[in-house]
Amino acid sequence: MELEPIKIVRIFDKFAIYLSKDIYQILPLTFMLGFFVTFVVSRWLAILNGIGWIDNSAMAFAALIHGDDEKTKLLRRTLIRYMVLNQALVLRDISMQVRKRFPTLETLIAAGLLTSTECKLIESINDHYSRYWVPLQWCQQHLCKARADAKIVNDNLLGRTLQEVHTFQQGLATLLKFDWVPVPLIYPQLIFMSVRIYFILCLISRQFLKDSSFDIWIPITTMIQFVVYMGWMKVAEMLLNPLGDDDDDLECNYVIDKNLITGLTLVERGSSSPPEMEKDVFWD
Amino acid sequence: MELEPIKIVRIFDKFAIYLSKDIYQILPLTFMLGFFVTFVVSRWLAILNGIGWIDNSAMAFAALIHGDDEKTKLLRRTLIRYMVLNQALVLRDISMQVRKRFPTLETLIAAGLLTSTECKLIESINDHYSRYWVPLQWCQQHLCKARADAKIVNDNLLGRTLQEVHTFQQGLATLLKFDWVPVPLIYPQLIFMSVRIYFILCLISRQFLKDSSFDIWIPITTMIQFVVYMGWMKVAEMLLNPLGDDDDDLECNYVIDKNLITGLTLVERGSSSPPEMEKDVFWD
Amino acid sequence: MELEPIKIVRIFDKFAIYLSKDIYQILPLTFMLGFFVTFVVSRWLAILNGIGWIDNSAMAFAALIHGDDEKTKLLRRTLIRYMVLNQALVLRDISMQVRKRFPTLETLIAAGLLTSTECKLIESINDHYSRYWVPLQWCQQHLCKARADAKIVNDNLLGRTLQEVHTFQQGLATLLKFDWVPVPLIYPQLIFMSVRIYFILCLISRQFLKDSSFDIWIPITTMIQFVVYMGWMKVAEMLLNPLGDDDDDLECNYVIDKNLITGLTLVERGSSSPPEMEKDVFWD
Amino acid sequence: MELEPIKIVRIFDKFAIYLSKDIYQILPLTFMLGFFVTFVVSRWLAILNGIGWIDNSAMAFAALIHGDDEKTKLLRRTLIRYMVLNQALVLRDISMQVRKRFPTLETLIAAGLLTSTECKLIESINDHYSRYWVPLQWCQQHLCKARADAKIVNDNLLGRTLQEVHTFQQGLATLLKFDWVPVPLIYPQLIFMSVRIYFILCLISRQFLKDSSFDIWIPITTMIQFVVYMGWMKVAEMLLNPLGDDDDDLECNYVIDKNLITGLTLVERGSSSPPEMEKDVFWD
Amino acid sequence: MELEPIKIVRIFDKFAIYLSKDIYQILPLTFMLGFFVTFVVSRWLAILNGIGWIDNSAMAFAALIHGDDEKTKLLRRTLIRYMVLNQALVLRDISMQVRKRFPTLETLIAAGLLTSTECKLIESINDHYSRYWVPLQWCQQHLCKARADAKIVNDNLLGRTLQEVHTFQQGLATLLKFDWVPVPLIYPQLIFMSVRIYFILCLISRQFLKDSSFDIWIPITTMIQFVVYMGWMKVAEMLLNPLGDDDDDLECNYVIDKNLITGLTLVERGSSSPPEMEKDVFWD
Repeated sequence: MELEPIKIVRIFDKFAIYLSKDIYQILPLTFMLGFFVTFVVSRWLAILNGIGWIDNSAMAFAALIHGDDEKTKLLRRTLIRYMVLNQALVLRDISMQVRKRFPTLETLIAAGLLTSTECKLIESINDHYSRYWVPLQWCQQHLCKARADAKIVNDNLLGRTLQEVHTFQQGLATLLKFDWVPVPLIYPQLIFMSVRIYFILCLISRQFLKDSSFDIWIPITTMIQFVVYMGWMKVAEMLLNPLGDDDDDLECNYVIDKNLITGLTLVERGSSSPPEMEKDVFWD
Repeated sequence: MELEPIKIVRIFDKFAIYLSKDIYQILPLTFMLGFFVTFVVSRWLAILNGIGWIDNSAMAFAALIHGDDEKTKLLRRTLIRYMVLNQALVLRDISMQVRKRFPTLETLIAAGLLTSTECKLIESINDHYSRYWVPLQWCQQHLCKARADAKIVNDNLLGRTLQEVHTFQQGLATLLKFDWVPVPLIYPQLIFMSVRIYFILCLISRQFLKDSSFDIWIPITTMIQFVVYMGWMKVAEMLLNPLGDDDDDLECNYVIDKNLITGLTLVERGSSSPPEMEKDVFWD
Repeated sequence: MELEPIKIVRIFDKFAIYLSKDIYQILPLTFMLGFFVTFVVSRWLAILNGIGWIDNSAMAFAALIHGDDEKTKLLRRTLIRYMVLNQALVLRDISMQVRKRFPTLETLIAAGLLTSTECKLIESINDHYSRYWVPLQWCQQHLCKARADAKIVNDNLLGRTLQEVHTFQQGLATLLKFDWVPVPLIYPQLIFMSVRIYFILCLISRQFLKDSSFDIWIPITTMIQFVVYMGWMKVAEMLLNPLGDDDDDLECNYVIDKNLITGLTLVERGSSSPPEMEKDVFWD
Repeated sequence: MELEPIKIVRIFDKFAIYLSKDIYQILPLTFMLGFFVTFVVSRWLAILNGIGWIDNSAMAFAALIHGDDEKTKLLRRTLIRYMVLNQALVLRDISMQVRKRFPTLETLIAAGLLTSTECKLIESINDHYSRYWVPLQWCQQHLCKARADAKIVNDNLLGRTLQEVHTFQQGLATLLKFDWVPVPLIYPQLIFMSVRIYFILCLISRQFLKDSSFDIWIPITTMIQFVVYMGWMKVAEMLLNPLGDDDDDLECNYVIDKNLITGLTLVERGSSSPPEMEKDVFWD
Repeated sequence: MELEPIKIVRIFDKFAIYLSKDIYQILPLTFMLGFFVTFVVSRWLAILNGIGWIDNSAMAFAALIHGDDEKTKLLRRTLIRYMVLNQALVLRDISMQVRKRFPTLETLIAAGLLTSTECKLIESINDHYSRYWVPLQWCQQHLCKARADAKIVNDNLLGRTLQEVHTFQQGLATLLKFDWVPVPLIYPQLIFMSVRIYFILCLISRQFLKDSSFDIWIPITTMIQFVVYMGWMKVAEMLLNPLGDDDDDLECNYVIDKNLITGLTLVERGSSSPPEMEKDVFWD
């Protein structure tokens, strides 16, 4: 027996009613998205803090490494360069933007972050993971030497500068850790799949049925809901991978450039004395 | 065929019923606002803590930099001035209130926070971002010199004072970071848009329809709901931008003034000895 | 035309039905209270931790300031007294309980926390805010002097004792900060207003209507709900202002007394040696 | 007029229907329990961390206090004993389990944690609260003496060992603080009362009424709900008082024993040198 | 009287309807899973951070332990080996993966992490728990000796290296603590049991009943719900036991191998000087 068109329509209607029943409870998108966004927000903050800001280190180098000869000046500049180089080395394995800018170590030489001698030294290391930290190791060695040369005047201050380098490295190590164990992969997949299934169900169930007394052709409420949930999901996706290639993602290349400029500018002033003290206007 | 008025009314009624159906599930404002406010609250706390309080630094300068000659007194006052100056430099790029008060560097001179010599030094720096930290760098240099002059009696105490300056700077750096990467912009936009769409829908769907047996002309429940959700959204907006120009926002100018007064008052006492110890009343 | 009583009743009935419709969605008290309590709980914990416990400082003074002459003993006791004094100075501007106990500085003298010489010194300071930290500043000065007098045997230990004083001050500074910027005022107001509006609506809408087939005169479920939500709101209120005057609030006066007794008792033992070591029973 | 049985049944039926209406909104157990458990979980973690683990201190004593004579060995063992003694003193006022094991100070002597000389010293202190910290104060005094005797080779290492003792004490002080200000008492009471009221309401409202077309005598769904909510409440209760006497609570006595054994074992090895270094198999 | 088949069907129908009533409120899986996952996520992060990453320690050893003779080289390598050995000792009692790889101490010798002399020393310790920390104790002893031999140039730097070892141990101690007091066992049991009960109820209640006008044989919505909730539960299970044997769990063996390779590579470079400084391209 053939199905008459009218019968198919009726079956479709029943199917749509069946699907629309309790849909809010069956796929509790609200809570899934709410809890998930709360989770990724804290992760996003950790990444934002870990990406590395050179201000503190630069100020410490400028204030605590004394000497206005050319060699000391070179030392301070080299420390900054090594830290930015380290950041670039780590970020090019994590962020698509930085990868595109520095596809090979040679491009780092071209950008002035690396010399060819240093490049060879880095390439001579076999363990890929160890390579990341080589420039920071050089920093530490230079700082210890600066203490031995009495450019850093006491052990306590040496400790402070080493601590700044350490903090910088901790942040980048956090990024590497998040890159290695992103989030239990199944968690975001589950969330994003649920949102998609939800709207597939809506495609069928939210149609104006033959029997319904009202039909405006355009399912306004479902469209609003689509915008809201898709927007929320987009927030979650963006917070989950802030080092991607999108417009909304963190601009890692900008951070690298800013670090280099700010770092060099700050240490450049290290040898110059602060301005002569004058009595302030509130002095009585 | 022309639509008769009565027919239009009926279509409107159906449209209103259609929109009001499941509105609470379609736009789950409750959860969106709840999760979002939880998120911005922690951000707001970070900003409140980062805005910079000078008490600790001032007490450290007063207690740990010894000397009652005029030069040491000047040193302690200058350190305070530099810290407040640094705060003003950062806040005027973040807070509208401070911007209005200090539109140019010259206004900082007029306020006694900056001398014209220092102003020239700051203006000679090209990198805009580096300018922020110049006064704190002078602080560090002065502190290192004070140690060399034995005004600070040991390396450990020098470390403590540098740490106070460092903590102050960390807070301001957090503000700059939040200013640069506010919140994924799409997140608050999504929330605030949802609240607005919700009440546009209500405008239509909550009307007393022609068929409804009861009509009090004034939609009391919708009005209550409007007050509550708009209030909640206002909380979120306020917490999101606590450095704005509203009455409820943090009074940054007050913080700057208070820091200057309290800082100068605390260091002023640095040269005076503590009162003679007397046996307390519980001594036996 | 006059309204007949029966008609008024009928209108009231319809009004009640109108109000009771969707009341749970219109005022989502559950979530508002849940999120709000979560927020104030963390604030309450910060206040509890910041209120100041002297144990650590007292133990540090006792163990690290050597000397069994009367002057050293006086020093240790005075340090404790200054810290408790500082706590009292701060808390009397925050907590109603402490304010009642110490309405003026003279009452602090009567309580043995302050001498009249010290009182004059504090009163000679104009900046109200700076007054808070004067006793702690004296602590720091005494500690630095104790190091100079070799009562504290090395710089590292001086750093530890200063750190304890610092931690104590940080806690009290947190309380002052929370007092200055309580919570965005609109947030608790919104929550508490919502709870009150809710029960005003219930007063009308939860009446047993004329048409209802069942009437037990006493609205049991609404009463239960009232107890639960009012209890929850009370929790929020209590956590929001833990320094108030209620029975449930933190007993600040008890903390001050306890700090004084425990502090003095602990430092009193500073000059006495630990007991002779004996082989423990597990020695083989 | 007498009530006929049938009428009573009918009134009961109506009463049951009245109570069952909106019961999920009137008592939103789900959210109350959810938010409350979230709150107590963080408190429980703080207690778990604060309960005191001696490993770090023991390793620090073993590695940093040099000397293989009997007196140094005794010193290391005594330090461990004092720390465990301190833990026992605090825990017996907080945990029922430990109280039962050590009802008096004499039982601590019998357990080998205390000598009778030390017991008298502790009993000579009047302030109950100060007693807790006396053994740790002895630790600090012994450590300072060990530095004076050059058993600890430099000030920095003395600072490290004092820090370990400090951390241990901080944890126990947290427990005492939680014991003094448990949680705003009204909060758990509110939650637990709500769960109980809920099931009293269910007793009446979930009965199979006379008119219902279906009766299985056993209210399966209510039973399931009872198991789930009571289980959840049990989780909250357990997390709220982890130092109680139940099977699920933290085994404080086990922690004390473990600390003593592990501590003594670790310091016992302090005088023995590490094994001779050998080239590892990856050496090339 | 025998039950006719048709009657049984009808009773079943009624039973199914009874069970399906209010099922979303009776078992509020959404919230239970949401709150529970939030809880285990923070636990999972603590485990991920605690599992131990050797980078910082290796860099500290390389930069701060000076000397390019073979003995110093051996010292640095041995320190790394001891730390990885310690990690392996702890993880084999926690992680099934590591247990399978290192069922006995002998297998650690075969893997080159342990020498037979060291193995005997470890086996000579009776307290099982103390064994864990023996290799780290050797590290500390070697570091103190390196300071005495002036391979570490000042006390401050010795403090830094000891701190790195300390941090490494803290992480592993956290894992042991979580292993000893997993989570109040009743909490995950309650959650997982609820999910299972829920779907048993669904098996009965979600059948297409005899009277229902629509029957598609396949319960699509229940199947979708099953996938979503089971997925969510799976996320919770995975986050609860990240050290298990599944594909999704943390690869502990990989961490051990990586730590050994990276550690040895990094310290290997310790004796070699950093490259000669060259003027960077931005020098003017």
